[in-house]
Amino acid sequence: MGGREGIGLEAIRGAADRVRPRIHRTPVLTCRSLDRLVGARLFFKCENFQKAGSFKIRGAANAVFSLSRAEAARGVATHSSGNHAQALALAASWKGCGAWIVMPVNAAPVKRAAVEEYGATVVPCAPTLEARERTLEQVRAETGAVFIHPYDDGRVIAGQGTAALEFLEDVPDLDALAAPVGGGGLMSGTVLAASALRPGIALFGVEPEGADDAKRSLEEGRIVPSVHPRTIADGLLTSLGRKTFPILREHLREILTVPDAAILEAMKLLWERMKIVVEPSGAVPLAALLLHRERFPGERIGLILTGGNTSFPGSGGPAGPATIE
Amino acid sequence: MGGREGIGLEAIRGAADRVRPRIHRTPVLTCRSLDRLVGARLFFKCENFQKAGSFKIRGAANAVFSLSRAEAARGVATHSSGNHAQALALAASWKGCGAWIVMPVNAAPVKRAAVEEYGATVVPCAPTLEARERTLEQVRAETGAVFIHPYDDGRVIAGQGTAALEFLEDVPDLDALAAPVGGGGLMSGTVLAASALRPGIALFGVEPEGADDAKRSLEEGRIVPSVHPRTIADGLLTSLGRKTFPILREHLREILTVPDAAILEAMKLLWERMKIVVEPSGAVPLAALLLHRERFPGERIGLILTGGNTSFPGSGGPAGPATIE
Repeated sequence: MGGREGIGLEAIRGAADRVRPRIHRTPVLTCRSLDRLVGARLFFKCENFQKAGSFKIRGAANAVFSLSRAEAARGVATHSSGNHAQALALAASWKGCGAWIVMPVNAAPVKRAAVEEYGATVVPCAPTLEARERTLEQVRAETGAVFIHPYDDGRVIAGQGTAALEFLEDVPDLDALAAPVGGGGLMSGTVLAASALRPGIALFGVEPEGADDAKRSLEEGRIVPSVHPRTIADGLLTSLGRKTFPILREHLREILTVPDAAILEAMKLLWERMKIVVEPSGAVPLAALLLHRERFPGERIGLILTGGNTSFPGSGGPAGPATIE
Repeated sequence: MGGREGIGLEAIRGAADRVRPRIHRTPVLTCRSLDRLVGARLFFKCENFQKAGSFKIRGAANAVFSLSRAEAARGVATHSSGNHAQALALAASWKGCGAWIVMPVNAAPVKRAAVEEYGATVVPCAPTLEARERTLEQVRAETGAVFIHPYDDGRVIAGQGTAALEFLEDVPDLDALAAPVGGGGLMSGTVLAASALRPGIALFGVEPEGADDAKRSLEEGRIVPSVHPRTIADGLLTSLGRKTFPILREHLREILTVPDAAILEAMKLLWERMKIVVEPSGAVPLAALLLHRERFPGERIGLILTGGNTSFPGSGGPAGPATIE
């Protein structure tokens, strides 16, 4: 593995063995009232209840616990202002190794605080892609830390695939599975696990309309960069990577897109009907099923609720659209 | 039973047999980060995930399924603008009997709609105690419906006690148990079940400071009516009843009170740390433990999260304080 080639079911099973002692086996919930709204049988894999609040701990923990002793001694580094930052900080604290997180100066103070609470060092940078990459390079030069990319890394992809592995152990007879697509780490792990465990399962990626670079990438057959994305789903702003793009191209049936209004409506339904907190990015698959309900009559559909890190009403969010750079 | 005397463990076990096929056995969740904040080991019985969104379905279903055939043919009636209204409407729909719910004209349209969605008839009345009781009497005179009081009814109390029964089956070794006190139906069922199953367990009621009539009632040894209560915990506005008062006086160790700011903080923590939606009334026990953390060092404490019926941000609540009449 080691961030290189050959990500498959075996690597995902290895990741599962590695992360199982440390993460939650999140529950799969169902809700008859949402079933009636969609006209299908829905199964929700609740990664919003996961350690550090999202599925990202799966990939981060697999990467950190795959390090050699020499690598671990040098620590890990990444750039992220979101869930990967918290996840890598937490995984590094478990391993007892250093973690440096490059974060734009305009990141939400609460996100910075969460990373520091796990004992990681936040390295501020200007809010541009160039500054972020330059700062990360400086950190790596000074510390020797191992870069753990948020998604374009085989160890991370294999770790994210453990969610679908558990999901299909708990609900083996799904007809379809839908997950959000940002950089494609979760989606890649999901399609690799699901297509191996259940050949023929229909695999859907879902994107916000305002950040539909993955859909366009699959249509054009090349990685179309995410330029000026604009959506409330602030976990889905990034472009596909060199590792994730070919995996999605091979395995995804289709990418569905949803407007922000549908994402908000899905968050509201998860709140009102299931009484659970899901961040905008995590509500995207349900939004797609509500919009396209005529396509799945009576099917058994799995949805990954990817995270729950959204502010309590009155403390800032879910607010307006997010952008990067 | 039949709303009369002799509510004890046997009646609660009978209620459990009656309601079990129809309601959720709600999960007991734990959260290490909240444990650290309180300095104790907390167990949350998640009635916010219950059918119709709160524990109220337990008492309503037990009452409805305790009716004789002749009573059921006449249907049921109550006055409530809250969770009991929805619960009784749903229970009646299961039983296939009529339900008339007297509701003040200023009740939230969403609450009225929820009751009507379950097939019950909403009977509007002026927003005063007198109009409510007069309207209910008219309904009963016209329909012959059986009045199911929201809390001062032995069948309802026994039904509410099934939550504590399940709770102590799942976590038998609790040192203490805390639940909110409104009219005292849940609290009565809880103390009857818990004191029988686990003699010596410390039983705490919790009230908002702005609706502390139960605390004053226990202090004064008589039912002190709830006059002009004012709190965001809109499920806890009512006075104790003739049945609930003596049960609480006999079994409760103490009633703790909490300001609205602490209730909001507890809702926020349940949101941020556990990713679950709890209505203000349901967050009251956690608010009390946070305020009184020095009293429970290292103890194993059960809390009943009573309901999750609160509006999505942007659709109305959790907003300002609620009052009655």
